[in-house]
Amino acid sequence: MSANTPPDNSSTPTQQRLQMADIARLAGVSTSTVSRALAGSKLVNEETRTRIMELARSLKYTINIGAQNLRLKQNRTIGVVIPYDSATRQHLSDPFFLSMLGSLADALTEQGFDMLVSRVDAEELDAAAAPFDTGRVSGIVLIGQWRHHDQLNQLAARHVPIVVWGAQLPQQLYCTVGGDNVSGGDLAATHLLQQGRQRIAFFGDINLPEVALRYEGYCRALQRAGLAVDPALQVSVAFLPDSGRQAVQELMRRDVRFDAIFAGSDLLAMTAINTLRTLGLDVPRQIAVVGYDDIELSSYFHPPLSTIRQPIRAAGRALVAALLELIEGRPAPSMQLPTQLMVRESSNCV
Amino acid sequence: MSANTPPDNSSTPTQQRLQMADIARLAGVSTSTVSRALAGSKLVNEETRTRIMELARSLKYTINIGAQNLRLKQNRTIGVVIPYDSATRQHLSDPFFLSMLGSLADALTEQGFDMLVSRVDAEELDAAAAPFDTGRVSGIVLIGQWRHHDQLNQLAARHVPIVVWGAQLPQQLYCTVGGDNVSGGDLAATHLLQQGRQRIAFFGDINLPEVALRYEGYCRALQRAGLAVDPALQVSVAFLPDSGRQAVQELMRRDVRFDAIFAGSDLLAMTAINTLRTLGLDVPRQIAVVGYDDIELSSYFHPPLSTIRQPIRAAGRALVAALLELIEGRPAPSMQLPTQLMVRESSNCV
Repeated sequence: MSANTPPDNSSTPTQQRLQMADIARLAGVSTSTVSRALAGSKLVNEETRTRIMELARSLKYTINIGAQNLRLKQNRTIGVVIPYDSATRQHLSDPFFLSMLGSLADALTEQGFDMLVSRVDAEELDAAAAPFDTGRVSGIVLIGQWRHHDQLNQLAARHVPIVVWGAQLPQQLYCTVGGDNVSGGDLAATHLLQQGRQRIAFFGDINLPEVALRYEGYCRALQRAGLAVDPALQVSVAFLPDSGRQAVQELMRRDVRFDAIFAGSDLLAMTAINTLRTLGLDVPRQIAVVGYDDIELSSYFHPPLSTIRQPIRAAGRALVAALLELIEGRPAPSMQLPTQLMVRESSNCV
Repeated sequence: MSANTPPDNSSTPTQQRLQMADIARLAGVSTSTVSRALAGSKLVNEETRTRIMELARSLKYTINIGAQNLRLKQNRTIGVVIPYDSATRQHLSDPFFLSMLGSLADALTEQGFDMLVSRVDAEELDAAAAPFDTGRVSGIVLIGQWRHHDQLNQLAARHVPIVVWGAQLPQQLYCTVGGDNVSGGDLAATHLLQQGRQRIAFFGDINLPEVALRYEGYCRALQRAGLAVDPALQVSVAFLPDSGRQAVQELMRRDVRFDAIFAGSDLLAMTAINTLRTLGLDVPRQIAVVGYDDIELSSYFHPPLSTIRQPIRAAGRALVAALLELIEGRPAPSMQLPTQLMVRESSNCV
């Protein structure tokens, strides 16, 4: 048995025998002696029993039944996994991601946990479970659901304690904690309609589950107001620093009339506003803009950015709380946190 | 021996015996048998020798001499420690800190390392070494030198491989990687002087080593220009979101004339600019402003913020490279990375 043997979570009888055999080999005793010792049998003398128990503990061998608490006490580390796209070798610079990382670090510190951060290739998401499989963490928080629904279901199916920041999807086996994206999209569009805007562009990649739900909320608000949804106003762009500029230029290229923008992130909104400014378009007078996330700097931006607030601090706590439930063997239902409209100058046209 | 026994880095003969005694107890053999087995002696039969070697390896016992490479291969995790002030329970929300965390995560991923983040009470900084002492990480990067010089020296004195982001100080035993703060302060003040400004306020807590050096550079530039340093223009404020407002109000309270501000961080500069705007003061026409750090959002701010760029991406790589040298047992001299003036609209008055 190496230090890499998985803790016995999804243990089959075979795995269990295998681990006992490992301990037996290292202790220089038979497997049945290990089995008896771990069961506390008096057939094994006390010194050997103590020795085997200590060895099992040192090797992070966890006795399967009722050992969840023991496991949690032994290992006060939670893994935080952030998938990355190996093709673009994208860096970890998105302010929302970084804020979430900070919020998780704070929530874990409050509970006396350390945080093991690993980035894994998004194409090989199974590697996300490695820190758990090797006994280095008690469970995993994954930030970046993206298009990984099936892979995440596979992880959950093999009983890896994992909580994902993101949207709740059909046929979902894993636990998600996320903002209420439909309501967020609805709030943003309804607010812009109330400002008298009728041609509201939407910026964001609707192949991503969370963005798709924001778009759904946007469509709902338009339909409620008796307006048709114009696909020419939907611009699919990634969450990258240059995307706001690209999206504005794409609208110009399409030669489509618009009087407002609802952007899927604050960074998108800010870079869009800066591009509008270089084009001589006034925000909010000519184009009203609402972002998404409410990152710290949105209120310092000029004009201060209207946005949908994601409760980042509460999110860190909720992700940790759900994961601790799973680790303790209790169910953790998926959860939506409320989102909130923050009206600032960028959309305040009245 | 528990999994918490420290790897044998700063090992004294006593510690070494202790670890061998632990292995002996768990293997059910004598200490001298362990000693012989680990030395590869033929006096121990092969089966026992293999068993003890495997046990030692599983328990992360590292043989002291020449074992550095082994240790590094076994444990590809680096600890990142961020001290926090328990009195204020301050959260991890400073954009510069978060960017540094992201940069470290990227640099470690590139090298195939995971990152164990822990926050420790700044008053009990000795706890920073715990992840190393318990064998969970190969070495430590500490972000937040602040007033902890003596405690950091103590850690280095007991051979904890540790690299600190910060300023190089007299009588320093630990390795630092940091920006060239004196040059950064000089660049900022010289630029403002060239813009015709003579009454340059300085915002920042000069009890912090890095800030003190930025102030030193500022003073140097003033003196070179034949100007006296006016202490009434130096405002000590912490790096907190509200500090920019506080500092501007403090200048108003002092009723001191100023035509420029050099702020010790971008966040300070941005919140100062917003406060100046509410007071009806135009930036840069009436007050030119230069920040420090060049966080990503500085260029999106309005007016785009002039600042001193800290090379955050290069910093992550340099911190990791220095730490790997220390872990391999090689010297890692402290290092200063160049800082660079970024002129944008907030100080461009010509």
